[in-house]
Amino acid sequence: MRFLTAGESHGPQLTAIVEGVPSQLPLQAEDINKHLARRQKGYGRGRRMQIEKDQVQILSGVRHGRTTGAPITLVVENKDWTHWTKIMGAEPISEEEEQEVKRKITRPRPGHADLNGAIKYRHRDMRNVLERSSARETTVRVAVGALAQVILEQFNIRLAGHVLEIGDVKAEQLPFESVDALQEVTEASEVRCMDNEASEKMKAAIDDAKQNGDSIGGIVEVIAENVPIGLGSFVHYDRKLDGKIAQSVLSINAFKGVEIGLGFEAARMKGSEVHDEITYSEENGFQRRTNRLGGFEGGMTNGMPVVVHGAMKPIPTLYKPLQSVDIDSKEPFTASIERSDSCAVPAAAVVAEAAVAWELADAFLDKFGADTMEDIRQSYENYLKEAREF
Amino acid sequence: MRFLTAGESHGPQLTAIVEGVPSQLPLQAEDINKHLARRQKGYGRGRRMQIEKDQVQILSGVRHGRTTGAPITLVVENKDWTHWTKIMGAEPISEEEEQEVKRKITRPRPGHADLNGAIKYRHRDMRNVLERSSARETTVRVAVGALAQVILEQFNIRLAGHVLEIGDVKAEQLPFESVDALQEVTEASEVRCMDNEASEKMKAAIDDAKQNGDSIGGIVEVIAENVPIGLGSFVHYDRKLDGKIAQSVLSINAFKGVEIGLGFEAARMKGSEVHDEITYSEENGFQRRTNRLGGFEGGMTNGMPVVVHGAMKPIPTLYKPLQSVDIDSKEPFTASIERSDSCAVPAAAVVAEAAVAWELADAFLDKFGADTMEDIRQSYENYLKEAREF
Amino acid sequence: MRFLTAGESHGPQLTAIVEGVPSQLPLQAEDINKHLARRQKGYGRGRRMQIEKDQVQILSGVRHGRTTGAPITLVVENKDWTHWTKIMGAEPISEEEEQEVKRKITRPRPGHADLNGAIKYRHRDMRNVLERSSARETTVRVAVGALAQVILEQFNIRLAGHVLEIGDVKAEQLPFESVDALQEVTEASEVRCMDNEASEKMKAAIDDAKQNGDSIGGIVEVIAENVPIGLGSFVHYDRKLDGKIAQSVLSINAFKGVEIGLGFEAARMKGSEVHDEITYSEENGFQRRTNRLGGFEGGMTNGMPVVVHGAMKPIPTLYKPLQSVDIDSKEPFTASIERSDSCAVPAAAVVAEAAVAWELADAFLDKFGADTMEDIRQSYENYLKEAREF
Amino acid sequence: MRFLTAGESHGPQLTAIVEGVPSQLPLQAEDINKHLARRQKGYGRGRRMQIEKDQVQILSGVRHGRTTGAPITLVVENKDWTHWTKIMGAEPISEEEEQEVKRKITRPRPGHADLNGAIKYRHRDMRNVLERSSARETTVRVAVGALAQVILEQFNIRLAGHVLEIGDVKAEQLPFESVDALQEVTEASEVRCMDNEASEKMKAAIDDAKQNGDSIGGIVEVIAENVPIGLGSFVHYDRKLDGKIAQSVLSINAFKGVEIGLGFEAARMKGSEVHDEITYSEENGFQRRTNRLGGFEGGMTNGMPVVVHGAMKPIPTLYKPLQSVDIDSKEPFTASIERSDSCAVPAAAVVAEAAVAWELADAFLDKFGADTMEDIRQSYENYLKEAREF
Repeated sequence: MRFLTAGESHGPQLTAIVEGVPSQLPLQAEDINKHLARRQKGYGRGRRMQIEKDQVQILSGVRHGRTTGAPITLVVENKDWTHWTKIMGAEPISEEEEQEVKRKITRPRPGHADLNGAIKYRHRDMRNVLERSSARETTVRVAVGALAQVILEQFNIRLAGHVLEIGDVKAEQLPFESVDALQEVTEASEVRCMDNEASEKMKAAIDDAKQNGDSIGGIVEVIAENVPIGLGSFVHYDRKLDGKIAQSVLSINAFKGVEIGLGFEAARMKGSEVHDEITYSEENGFQRRTNRLGGFEGGMTNGMPVVVHGAMKPIPTLYKPLQSVDIDSKEPFTASIERSDSCAVPAAAVVAEAAVAWELADAFLDKFGADTMEDIRQSYENYLKEAREF
Repeated sequence: MRFLTAGESHGPQLTAIVEGVPSQLPLQAEDINKHLARRQKGYGRGRRMQIEKDQVQILSGVRHGRTTGAPITLVVENKDWTHWTKIMGAEPISEEEEQEVKRKITRPRPGHADLNGAIKYRHRDMRNVLERSSARETTVRVAVGALAQVILEQFNIRLAGHVLEIGDVKAEQLPFESVDALQEVTEASEVRCMDNEASEKMKAAIDDAKQNGDSIGGIVEVIAENVPIGLGSFVHYDRKLDGKIAQSVLSINAFKGVEIGLGFEAARMKGSEVHDEITYSEENGFQRRTNRLGGFEGGMTNGMPVVVHGAMKPIPTLYKPLQSVDIDSKEPFTASIERSDSCAVPAAAVVAEAAVAWELADAFLDKFGADTMEDIRQSYENYLKEAREF
Repeated sequence: MRFLTAGESHGPQLTAIVEGVPSQLPLQAEDINKHLARRQKGYGRGRRMQIEKDQVQILSGVRHGRTTGAPITLVVENKDWTHWTKIMGAEPISEEEEQEVKRKITRPRPGHADLNGAIKYRHRDMRNVLERSSARETTVRVAVGALAQVILEQFNIRLAGHVLEIGDVKAEQLPFESVDALQEVTEASEVRCMDNEASEKMKAAIDDAKQNGDSIGGIVEVIAENVPIGLGSFVHYDRKLDGKIAQSVLSINAFKGVEIGLGFEAARMKGSEVHDEITYSEENGFQRRTNRLGGFEGGMTNGMPVVVHGAMKPIPTLYKPLQSVDIDSKEPFTASIERSDSCAVPAAAVVAEAAVAWELADAFLDKFGADTMEDIRQSYENYLKEAREF
Repeated sequence: MRFLTAGESHGPQLTAIVEGVPSQLPLQAEDINKHLARRQKGYGRGRRMQIEKDQVQILSGVRHGRTTGAPITLVVENKDWTHWTKIMGAEPISEEEEQEVKRKITRPRPGHADLNGAIKYRHRDMRNVLERSSARETTVRVAVGALAQVILEQFNIRLAGHVLEIGDVKAEQLPFESVDALQEVTEASEVRCMDNEASEKMKAAIDDAKQNGDSIGGIVEVIAENVPIGLGSFVHYDRKLDGKIAQSVLSINAFKGVEIGLGFEAARMKGSEVHDEITYSEENGFQRRTNRLGGFEGGMTNGMPVVVHGAMKPIPTLYKPLQSVDIDSKEPFTASIERSDSCAVPAAAVVAEAAVAWELADAFLDKFGADTMEDIRQSYENYLKEAREF
């Protein structure tokens, strides 16, 4: 599978084309919309989340509720586009209009793509950068990831993205019965956190940041359950699935770190404490006693749950301003405010879940074929049997 | 640029083909050998490092000390191949020979690719897995990265990989004048660490682990200096250069985490403390006061040094054995010892440096063209001027 | 650059996302619409061409008439979608509805993707194949190629696609002053042919085929002028530009052959008659006396016009029926009629032009950079100077 | 699967790395050597073919006669390398040496990559171009294609490359029982031609060209039998397998045209004469009466033999000289002779066979998985059963 996304934050729409999806997969807009809604929830989101309830349109590749094998077009319209047609239109405008409507941006915000993007692409109006570099793009990445989840669910592979830390508040890692159960609990939390006590503290931390005109980041976790042994491969470095997941997660806006399993903590432990011992039973084949390595050995899944952590820095847009310099006047100023979220971590957990889902589904199809769901199911079941009897 | 690597740990040789290198680049085996030697140093390396002094042969794409634009073949021979010709030969062997020479491996080591790789590729002899999944492969990745560094050095972009932590010992982050100065200091340390006091403690920790039949991991840092603004791009998630670096670093054997700049720490700080304020002077154009974001905003370089951290887990091969199960007899056993390093972190710093170098050089050529060094130089200088005058 | 297309023949729309277009390129819908209109012209087109006047919408990546560097979304709506919402909708339908509206297709047409596609993707309703395999998809390929032409025109590289043969009528190869002049002449011909006399005969041949319930194919030529020396590369087989063009042209619906320059004729000539002698003048640098090799040597352009021929078989949809077998009843039948064109060769010339334009523009940006039009222009001019002074 | 090749005509060796080959494939050097030998045969080859009997070494990815899933290194040494170490060495040489040994080439041959490659990569010594652009590279492409054939043979897919035309001599298309039978007949012909009478005429034509200091080209055909329905896909233009084959074949040195099935001839026929009617029997499922479309509809295989034609121009190296210009002195001269083949068409048939084999094997693994031969076999057999019962 492969996909491209397009669209600006205040343009008419966001678009994705996903190519290589097997035929005969049951797929409806609702399967995607529920994840779009999850992304829009979250304590501390700004005004925009209220006006726009994102809805996907499936404009190709699906007929009567099933995929055909053809490329799938996903469109999410921007609801306030009507107010932006002049400012963001594709058509040329006159110079007078330009003065009037352009909302030209010449003041780069630290922590954003603004300045680097403007220099790279020679834009004197940095709106030409920030409209695309905006986290609004993660909407279609969630849509694409939702599609991937529909594939994975056919094989009972379940994912949950949730919040471990916000600012200096750390959730306790509570036990959970299944990824579905975890999902249910975290879905009920306004900060997508499994620990109720921590949830309250996180909300307080968000309120606090907001009041101080500041912002806070956090750490999210994505867990995937029922992943078979052997997705990804050790044979070439760029086929290691944990590496692909690392790229995918780190490329989410504002993410600055990614870990598999114990991650950085593993670097500080002894070898005898880090690895997962191997057991065997006739019924289940080979299994592990623990899951310190987060489901990966040698760049391949090992049958244990996949566990990925991502670190999100605080949103750079700030009430509490930072020093910057106007690119036209070269005068210093204190950075402007484009939006008002003070914490986007709960939403980011949904985006990270989508990113991991895509990589897992893609690796799954690499291994088990990619033409029709029935062919894939046969390959998969043959393989599970072999793996169990290995 | 693109490359493929091949070769087994005890096969005749490791091979890489690098395609897309510009013509007219001065390149000699020595440019690569010095990095191969750096990889082989390091306190706590096992016996093998002594017998093999890796040397590259350049077998295509370079003539009389300059690249031609044609694909470059890099070969590093395995010095002890002569002892392995029967065990690892490509030719079929008789069944009697098989019993005698095969050194069949049926006991998977926790933390290695052994078991998953065997199930995935249906190998009853796990030597067919571990010969390729071995960290021996990083030798050619260092060779390829060295080639990338030769490109970068032409534009005065300098890299250094060094060690921040080993086990529970943490180096102090000392100031340094330049990446070259840092490189010089860390090169002199047996554990590739800038902090002499910490170096001694690290060596003690390695000795300690060895005595206890255990192993320890650590954290490495790669810094790149003089990187221009605008490598990578925000326009599509898979063109973000920090994401590519994350894949490249996490795909190094035993790496479980990667960070850019403050990384996970950034997730615990306030927005006002995390971002890098923008300044301007006529002489230097736009610059930053700080470098908390590790040289990246919006997936692009921002002109500050690129700072990448990678977390390496302890080497899974252990004196202190872990529980596992023989894949033939299904009997439990305690995992065997294949080699004797107890800490590979200093070498891993060199590998991580190579991984980052490749991604930077590739992004550099994406931006400035890729046919000849002279064309690239012109493009680069034009761009630097524009960026400065932006 | 890279792109994906999506959309069915009777779905709501065709969509393309084009990623990697430089910033600062002047681009308007009209630049693309003119090529869409060219594709829709042509003697012998059926009814559908009349109802639908294709118009592109640019929904991202362009602001106020200039590209921003962000991915560009191109949409062409299908005008008769309103009549097909039930038959082609993405939503599930009830079984009763299914009987009523589905227009299920169980009769595969020889020469189409119908049967093979149905077996590959396990479709019992072959509409799920033919809606995507339809030549309707060439509409967006023309749109994408038009975008490529806008890039090429900035560097005065001009293309023309025209018709050499239809059925058994062969145009005379008349001299022309420039590609623009050729374009003007062929644009005025209802069969996009430079030879007026042949044009009339071609029209008669089309009429004749139509009356007999048959169809005819033909041969198209694409010429590109002002292409610099050195696009593509000999260093690796998959970087040869003539090879890429071959794939691109042969992947147009109904194309069965492709030639560069003299093509198959060259195979029957002597070496001394086939190659293009080299001349030199201080003013123009190295040039050629002839252009038998169609502008390519060693997989690279040689500064002469690029000349590509493509062979299109007759449209398989037929009044004059062919034998086939119903996939449900397994009863033989004579193949059904889905549409009424009897010759699509004039349109195919426009599609082939688009295919070649994309490959040239992509190779151009590979060589001269891809961030901004100004940077590219500088690289290009430096290179032209060097080439002239070589 | 993917591969890279490297190596110069007079360098130490040619190298290929092939990544993505399934495990458990029986593979020996002999499987490849027999195709290398076939490539070296052929009436009219020059002296070099005698001195070098190409032999492959398999240096990774194969153990005891079976693939492991790891990347496969193929090396073919150049036998006369010892005479070229100074001229072609990677090491820098002194200026005196340079004068002595360099065999600098400043006289570009029409029809070769010499001039364009020199301008593109800024080489004043065109040896830096011609050593890589040489058809010597096709040796490793044959090696890689041989590996692909070993995969295909496991599924009884058989290929034969043979000669249809040389110069103005055209072979009669005789009936043959199977591709193996065809292979046997053409293997016995010195010009790899099925028609004995034509063979003799072709040899005479080659002799004639040689005597006149001229060269001749020709047309080759590759046939593949037992190819299942549904390789390739219509869903996206770049997944059409006939298009990929077109690129692969046209990228062979000196190829200027490629056709599928009737090819250009189809463009001159009526629709009712071109398409392949569909029949059905319970035993064999859907089949075709004829094979005018060369085994492809909609970019997918249709179960009939794949038939590909390639047109090779006469070898540009000439006794009968063409006009050219020295790049240093800018003086005109008549082009030099680098080698002495006057016809390479019989060898080219083997190269084209290899090119087609690679694309078929790659598409095969795309459809049926790529990890182990046993998994692939299961998928394949399931699919064949379904296709038969469709």
